[in-house]
Amino acid sequence: MTAIREKFGLRIVTEAVEESHVDLIERYGDVIQIGARNMQNFSLLKRAGRSKLPVLLKRGMAATLEEWLLAAEYIMAEGNYNVILCERGVRTFAQHTRNTLDLASVPAIRRISHLPVIVDPSHGTGTAYMVTPLARAGIAVGADGLMIEVHNQPELALSDSAQALTLSEYAQLIEEVRAIRSLMAADGNGTFNVT
Amino acid sequence: MTAIREKFGLRIVTEAVEESHVDLIERYGDVIQIGARNMQNFSLLKRAGRSKLPVLLKRGMAATLEEWLLAAEYIMAEGNYNVILCERGVRTFAQHTRNTLDLASVPAIRRISHLPVIVDPSHGTGTAYMVTPLARAGIAVGADGLMIEVHNQPELALSDSAQALTLSEYAQLIEEVRAIRSLMAADGNGTFNVT
Amino acid sequence: MTAIREKFGLRIVTEAVEESHVDLIERYGDVIQIGARNMQNFSLLKRAGRSKLPVLLKRGMAATLEEWLLAAEYIMAEGNYNVILCERGVRTFAQHTRNTLDLASVPAIRRISHLPVIVDPSHGTGTAYMVTPLARAGIAVGADGLMIEVHNQPELALSDSAQALTLSEYAQLIEEVRAIRSLMAADGNGTFNVT
Amino acid sequence: MTAIREKFGLRIVTEAVEESHVDLIERYGDVIQIGARNMQNFSLLKRAGRSKLPVLLKRGMAATLEEWLLAAEYIMAEGNYNVILCERGVRTFAQHTRNTLDLASVPAIRRISHLPVIVDPSHGTGTAYMVTPLARAGIAVGADGLMIEVHNQPELALSDSAQALTLSEYAQLIEEVRAIRSLMAADGNGTFNVT
Repeated sequence: MTAIREKFGLRIVTEAVEESHVDLIERYGDVIQIGARNMQNFSLLKRAGRSKLPVLLKRGMAATLEEWLLAAEYIMAEGNYNVILCERGVRTFAQHTRNTLDLASVPAIRRISHLPVIVDPSHGTGTAYMVTPLARAGIAVGADGLMIEVHNQPELALSDSAQALTLSEYAQLIEEVRAIRSLMAADGNGTFNVT
Repeated sequence: MTAIREKFGLRIVTEAVEESHVDLIERYGDVIQIGARNMQNFSLLKRAGRSKLPVLLKRGMAATLEEWLLAAEYIMAEGNYNVILCERGVRTFAQHTRNTLDLASVPAIRRISHLPVIVDPSHGTGTAYMVTPLARAGIAVGADGLMIEVHNQPELALSDSAQALTLSEYAQLIEEVRAIRSLMAADGNGTFNVT
Repeated sequence: MTAIREKFGLRIVTEAVEESHVDLIERYGDVIQIGARNMQNFSLLKRAGRSKLPVLLKRGMAATLEEWLLAAEYIMAEGNYNVILCERGVRTFAQHTRNTLDLASVPAIRRISHLPVIVDPSHGTGTAYMVTPLARAGIAVGADGLMIEVHNQPELALSDSAQALTLSEYAQLIEEVRAIRSLMAADGNGTFNVT
Repeated sequence: MTAIREKFGLRIVTEAVEESHVDLIERYGDVIQIGARNMQNFSLLKRAGRSKLPVLLKRGMAATLEEWLLAAEYIMAEGNYNVILCERGVRTFAQHTRNTLDLASVPAIRRISHLPVIVDPSHGTGTAYMVTPLARAGIAVGADGLMIEVHNQPELALSDSAQALTLSEYAQLIEEVRAIRSLMAADGNGTFNVT
């Protein structure tokens, strides 16, 4: 993986589910991911806060915005201000998706925090055919980025195969979100450049 | 109102909360709205089904897609096939919005039904500053239209003033959603025309 | 049914899903039930408010206490103060029951309203084996009564067969809740008589 | 605390929020508590599984029964079978309580697992006046025990003061739940001994 990373200049995001993983990611990765299930694992948050790597903090399954931002505070209180928030859906009664992607969290976070926020429509829906429409919606609502699950053969994926895009679906998604993104102002505030 | 409707060619959508309202709307309106609280008011659904006017059927606050589509069936079973579905958010634990706008319902409905589906980001968020971003997201996810609350002086509105846009905010919203809409294919399936 | 009602002195609760049903219930029934789906069917609430019969008002699937009590106000504003509230569970992400029975609503209602409140563990769980434990819990939490689904042959019931008790299960349930009820003070406030 | 524990024979339950806490609890405590926020902190679960002390595993805020039981499996897979489950409410739209206490989880767990299950009406409601009614309900539904927040001066408590009972309220609660408990069979299955 290190070889591929150097050859292609790819950056690697890896999830840490325990403190010792952060050591490994510091050696071989570029971004520490804290998953939804660990959003309130305070010792893990503190360890990530003592790292020099950026931290991708996923929203917990039933986390309010306040709890999510306070989790980010645990990281920043240790001196690491490179925190990226990731909306990945919350748990509701709805049954047509694995989670309910709460895109209103994006403008809400923008209003009360300076932290960048990205959207994960793969975990947010759990179903491949919904990923591209929700990716477009995520960019249109003003998110700073996306996290997309891709696999060259989704049917062989070890996990989450139902939500993985093929490489060609992914290429099409990129075209579509780029087209929307090109309409936005360069101010990085999620505003649109049309009058 | 009838005068304005004729002068400007505006179409009027009015909510019916009881059967007798449908008679009035048939005389003076263009579209019968069934609100979220009445999505399972079966006698009202049947009465709307006996009308020749289109019916805008809002999703109930805790309705699954199946329940929503079955409510539409009550209307169609009486012979009125002009049903428009409207996603307006569902009730969850989230506190930063009045409801949680479930945009994944749009591709999900498209996959299992031929009915048009629109998005209401005004009731879906309850907060004016979120309406435009979520309107953009609604179009980007593939909705056939939007329902937007506008008031020339929101602070004087008799209800829902916190979510009403001013006329100039509305004009800006229209520009932004038009720009996104122009990226979409003309097939009416919510697909994008970029390659 | 009228014959049985007179022979055995049974009281009959019947659900009204439209206004005309109230006329029929006034002729042949004893209590008008407003179901969860119609808790905010305001014209039906008003019609029930003009009746002399008591009204059993079920909590809506996603109703806050405030909305539930305001629905009761619609009935009382028409002059009918005989309103009985019925907790029947709310919709959540939980999958082990049809609804999540929110027994904390009972002490909460008692604190802010004089209206009697009963518990429906049949709809509240949707599963026969859970009905008796939750019925005991409903009485122990201080409810004024219970609503229990019973069928002499549950497997032949036209609806809700999964949650219906047999007659002998029902007889056992009555014994158990009576034993708990006997521990309570006679003040009708749901307090216990033990020191 | 160790002195008090020995003098009065009290058992001490302490929450571990990181693995090193387990070492301390093994020295000075009797039961390791895993809190709701850490129900899916897998490295902490595994560490508790390597302890000889019993583990009190609280249900996560949005955990299904399956996820809760699988978390218990993480502990048991390491060899520690002394796991006690604790229902403490789940997050819903309801606003009259801090969480919605899901008492139906008790009979559901009993049906599919041999693990003991207790109820925490203090965190489950967040409000002192509701604790006693829900404690009675918890025992009546068949729970094996209760977890109650008590403080000799709740208004001075460092946390959770709104839900703490005074000592005399606690004494009254004990009387009431004992009276209900005395109605139950000695089989430990939550069945009642009335006929």
